[in-house]
Amino acid sequence: MKSPVYQRMAVIGCGLIGSSVARAARATGAVGEVVVYDADPGVRRRALELGFADGAEDEAAKAVAGADLVMLATPVGVIGEVATALAPALTPGATITDVGSCKAVVAEAFAKLGRDDIHGIPGHPVAGTEKSGPDAGFAELFHNRWVILCPPPNGDTAALERLTAFWTRLGAKVEAMDATHHDLVLAVTSHLPHLIAYNIVGTAADMETVTQAEVMKFSAGGFRDFTRIAASDPTMWRDIFLNNKGAVLEILARFTEDLAMLSRAIRWDEGDKLHDLFTRTRDIRRGVIAAGQETAEPNFGRDKR
Amino acid sequence: MKSPVYQRMAVIGCGLIGSSVARAARATGAVGEVVVYDADPGVRRRALELGFADGAEDEAAKAVAGADLVMLATPVGVIGEVATALAPALTPGATITDVGSCKAVVAEAFAKLGRDDIHGIPGHPVAGTEKSGPDAGFAELFHNRWVILCPPPNGDTAALERLTAFWTRLGAKVEAMDATHHDLVLAVTSHLPHLIAYNIVGTAADMETVTQAEVMKFSAGGFRDFTRIAASDPTMWRDIFLNNKGAVLEILARFTEDLAMLSRAIRWDEGDKLHDLFTRTRDIRRGVIAAGQETAEPNFGRDKR
Repeated sequence: MKSPVYQRMAVIGCGLIGSSVARAARATGAVGEVVVYDADPGVRRRALELGFADGAEDEAAKAVAGADLVMLATPVGVIGEVATALAPALTPGATITDVGSCKAVVAEAFAKLGRDDIHGIPGHPVAGTEKSGPDAGFAELFHNRWVILCPPPNGDTAALERLTAFWTRLGAKVEAMDATHHDLVLAVTSHLPHLIAYNIVGTAADMETVTQAEVMKFSAGGFRDFTRIAASDPTMWRDIFLNNKGAVLEILARFTEDLAMLSRAIRWDEGDKLHDLFTRTRDIRRGVIAAGQETAEPNFGRDKR
Repeated sequence: MKSPVYQRMAVIGCGLIGSSVARAARATGAVGEVVVYDADPGVRRRALELGFADGAEDEAAKAVAGADLVMLATPVGVIGEVATALAPALTPGATITDVGSCKAVVAEAFAKLGRDDIHGIPGHPVAGTEKSGPDAGFAELFHNRWVILCPPPNGDTAALERLTAFWTRLGAKVEAMDATHHDLVLAVTSHLPHLIAYNIVGTAADMETVTQAEVMKFSAGGFRDFTRIAASDPTMWRDIFLNNKGAVLEILARFTEDLAMLSRAIRWDEGDKLHDLFTRTRDIRRGVIAAGQETAEPNFGRDKR
């Protein structure tokens, strides 16, 4: 096995992503040792039972002591305050990063840590499932997925290369970009899709003229797809929308504008406009499949054939 | 093998659904013989090559001659005119049905056929994939899926029971309801989801500040889910929106209203409102899984673990 990229990784927060990073780092030998902390004592116990950590500390500061990689995997709403609270406990030369879905707020928090001897590099693995908690994680979650890193301007090149090597070892592909651009891109590819999914499932549930039983029985017509991401962790997603407000509202305005055009096309029998759009969107799926981010199997391959 | 429910089934239109009905009927012995017609000569040839039909006629009237079950599987925009054109050729006592996603327009067309010796029963198997064409069909498509039948008031009970037995033989569950109610239910569980998916994929493709390559690379954040149904057949879906205009626009108005509330909650930092909705929508997914309409596997099971 190749030598570890970091000697000791502290993972703060052991949900789906944190526990998957821990599992993947151990499985690939990317780190010498994994120590975890979670605010929930039950989750800390579970981490040891599941065996994805060498140790679980009852204080975050103890976990990060001596760690050359600190991985914050809490909901994005508390990443800033967790980083600030841990700043005095960080080992000189360590890299602190995170896995949150909003990067500008994290970049801002890292910039204010007041530790010039620490490398703060916000990160975001674009991977996940609709499940939550330490039992939901798995080592292969990052295979062939993209991880976006948002290093500060004039940040240390060697630290960025090392973190890149870490994620690459876990099977991911890494791209660096500005935190603000990240937040715009993810508003399109992740935040708006979740908002729309949550919304349509809510709308369907609230109909008086269609029962919930009918909605569930006849969901194979398309609705069931939306229920998957609308089953994602509520706290995580509340935080994302509140911490990427500007980009989300901007993209949502575009979406609403386009939807008004579609609505009008239906009302006025403009079949050609509909057909043109529906043809164009087909090509986008081909691109997503070609980019290795999706299965080409019909129905995601979920129906037993 | 059990005895056939019908002696001769004519399938008009051999796309994903038509070819799947043919395959399933043959595989289960639900019919004695399958004869097909498709407006495209290449598809008729393909039907024989793929072997899901005993014969392929070059005129629809020839295919329905002698058939005790006529299955219209064309885009919904032409079902009415096809039925009208075929009316004189139908065998006395035959049942004519369809697989279209809008039922009120079909019920109206069937009511006007002017053949009292024919049983017209609009139908809709709530099943499918994003693929199109005769190669995309498969015999198991209807397993555990619901088929909605919309028999006319005072329609023949025996004819309805026979068609129900046919779909049950194909592995489906059958529910009868009024055509207008069907169109409302499906607007919620199928038509609005498709409209939203087409729209969000279009919005993403049209961004100037985010490249299409970025949209595709980082689509695993949620966007990729939407590309699946946005890859569905453009003609089929154009027809659906134009033929269920009232219900689609009504549900769309509800959706837009709810989305405005969500948008406002984000703008004004109303995290509790977001969290409440996101918790509620989780339960709906559990219901869909419990109803047997969805896999419980994370990410639809599409990620190799």
